[in-house]
Amino acid sequence: MPLVHTARMDAHAFDRAIKLTAGGEAGHWRGQTDPAYANMVGPYGGITAATALQAISQHPDRIGDPVSLTVNYCAALADGAFALTARPVRTNRSTQHWLVDIEQGGETVLTGTALTALRRETWGTQDEPAPRVLSPNAIGKPNMAALVEWVKRYDIRIVEGAIPRVWDGSGEHSRTTLWVRDEPPRALDFASLASMCDVFFPRVWLRRATRVPAGTVSMTIYFHVGQAELAAVGEGWLLGQAQSSVMRNGYFDQRGQLWSQAGALLATTHQVVYYKE
Amino acid sequence: MPLVHTARMDAHAFDRAIKLTAGGEAGHWRGQTDPAYANMVGPYGGITAATALQAISQHPDRIGDPVSLTVNYCAALADGAFALTARPVRTNRSTQHWLVDIEQGGETVLTGTALTALRRETWGTQDEPAPRVLSPNAIGKPNMAALVEWVKRYDIRIVEGAIPRVWDGSGEHSRTTLWVRDEPPRALDFASLASMCDVFFPRVWLRRATRVPAGTVSMTIYFHVGQAELAAVGEGWLLGQAQSSVMRNGYFDQRGQLWSQAGALLATTHQVVYYKE
Repeated sequence: MPLVHTARMDAHAFDRAIKLTAGGEAGHWRGQTDPAYANMVGPYGGITAATALQAISQHPDRIGDPVSLTVNYCAALADGAFALTARPVRTNRSTQHWLVDIEQGGETVLTGTALTALRRETWGTQDEPAPRVLSPNAIGKPNMAALVEWVKRYDIRIVEGAIPRVWDGSGEHSRTTLWVRDEPPRALDFASLASMCDVFFPRVWLRRATRVPAGTVSMTIYFHVGQAELAAVGEGWLLGQAQSSVMRNGYFDQRGQLWSQAGALLATTHQVVYYKE
Repeated sequence: MPLVHTARMDAHAFDRAIKLTAGGEAGHWRGQTDPAYANMVGPYGGITAATALQAISQHPDRIGDPVSLTVNYCAALADGAFALTARPVRTNRSTQHWLVDIEQGGETVLTGTALTALRRETWGTQDEPAPRVLSPNAIGKPNMAALVEWVKRYDIRIVEGAIPRVWDGSGEHSRTTLWVRDEPPRALDFASLASMCDVFFPRVWLRRATRVPAGTVSMTIYFHVGQAELAAVGEGWLLGQAQSSVMRNGYFDQRGQLWSQAGALLATTHQVVYYKE
C-alpha cells in the first residue's frame, strides 16, 4: 500500500488531473475535477479539453493521432465528478471522426468533436515562423499573475502583452507572446499540448485594461505534428502567441499559435470567448 | 398550382440548395444535394455547412443567432438524399449549444456543433481592418476559374492569389484576397455567410502551384455580427482573405476573414484540409 501511495504522489499533477476511470462500456469514463487546475469558476478550460482528448487517445478502437479538436463549454463544470463519453462515429481507412461529451447530474456541460488520422509523409512547408523574442532564461522567472490556481501548474514567461497591473482602460492591442511549459516540467504529449492552447488569459483584459468577466465558449485546435515531433520537444519550452481580431456585443475571437523552442509550429488554435459589458 | 411552380422557380439557387423538408420530430430533416452546387466529388462544403446552420435556424426551440459553428466532413456526401438532425443539447439563459449530424444510408457523413446566443450591446473594437484593395468594379468581372459547378453560383473577383494557370511548382505564398457575392445577388444571411466562408480554393494549390487532391475535413466559423449588420450588407460584396500557416504530412490549416465592403469584420473562419502527396 505505501508503494501504491508513493506511485500516485509521484505522478505529475497534469496526469492526475486528466485521469479517467473506465465506465461500463468502451468510451464511457468517469472523471473528477482537480483543485490543482481550478479556474475562477470550475476547472481551467485547457485541462477539460485535455481530458476530452485523453478519452479519445485511450479508446481501444482509435486509429491515428489527433488532427483537430473542437470543444464547446456549454456550462462551467462544477467541482466534483463528471461522466465523459467519447465515441468514434465514422472510421475511414486512415481517418476517424469522434464525438465527445461531458455530463454532470444528467446535464451536458461539454460537447466536442475530433478527427484522428494516420498521417503519412508528404511535401510540406511552414510559412508562419516563430516570432524572434527574448529566451525564457533572459526573462528569468514566471511572470504571469497567478490570479487563479491553474496558473501555478505552468511556468509562464510573458514576453509581451502581460496581464495589466493597472485596470485603467488604457489598452491598445490584444497580443500576448509567452513561453510556457508544465511546472514541474513534463514531456509534451497531445493532451498537454491541447491544454497549453488555452493558457492565454482573456484578450479583452489586455485590449481594454479592464477586468470584465470572460469565459471561453468554444475552442478549436489543429495539431500539425506527430509523436516523433512531440518527443523531440520533450520537456522543452513552447512559444505561444495569441490575439483577437474583433470584440463585439459580448463575444470576441482569439487565434493562437504554439511553436517549439526550435521553431516548429506544433498547433494552431482558435476560440470564441464570452465577455460581459 | 402554376403559381406555386413559379414561386419555386423564382427562388434563389442558394435557397433551393439548402431547402430542408421536416421529418417526423422537431430537428429531424430530409434534404437533397443540389447539382447546382456540385464540387469535384459531392456537394460544395460551404453549401453543406449552410444547410446544417439552416436546420438550426429553423428549429422551433432555437434562441438567438449563431456565434460559432464547427462542421466535420466525415466523408464526401454522395449526390442524392440525406437525413439531417439538429438538436439543442444545452439551453442556458442567453446561449444554446447544438449538435448536428448528417447521415446517408445509415452512415454519418457530417458532424457539427454550434452555439447560438442572444447578444446584447457591449463595448467593442475591431482590430483587424479590411485590406485596402481594388474595388470589384475595378477588377471588372468574375475571374476564378470555374473548375467545378458551385463556383458559377458566385461572382468571385480575385484581387491576389488566383488559382495558378500553370502548374509548375513555383508557388511562394498561400494568400488569396477576393470579392465574393452570390450570383445572382441575394441578401446576406447567416446561412449564405457560412457558405461563403468556404469559397477559397485549396491553399496548397496556390502555395505549390501544384494541383493535388485536397478536401476540407473540419471547418469552424465565428460570427461577429447580428441580423441588423447582415441586413445592412444586403446584396453587397464581401471581401475575403485566406491563408495557411503550415502544411505538413497530409494536412494544412487555413484561416480566413470576411468583411463587408464597408469594412466590418463579419466572420472569421478556420479549416483543416487534407491533401495528398
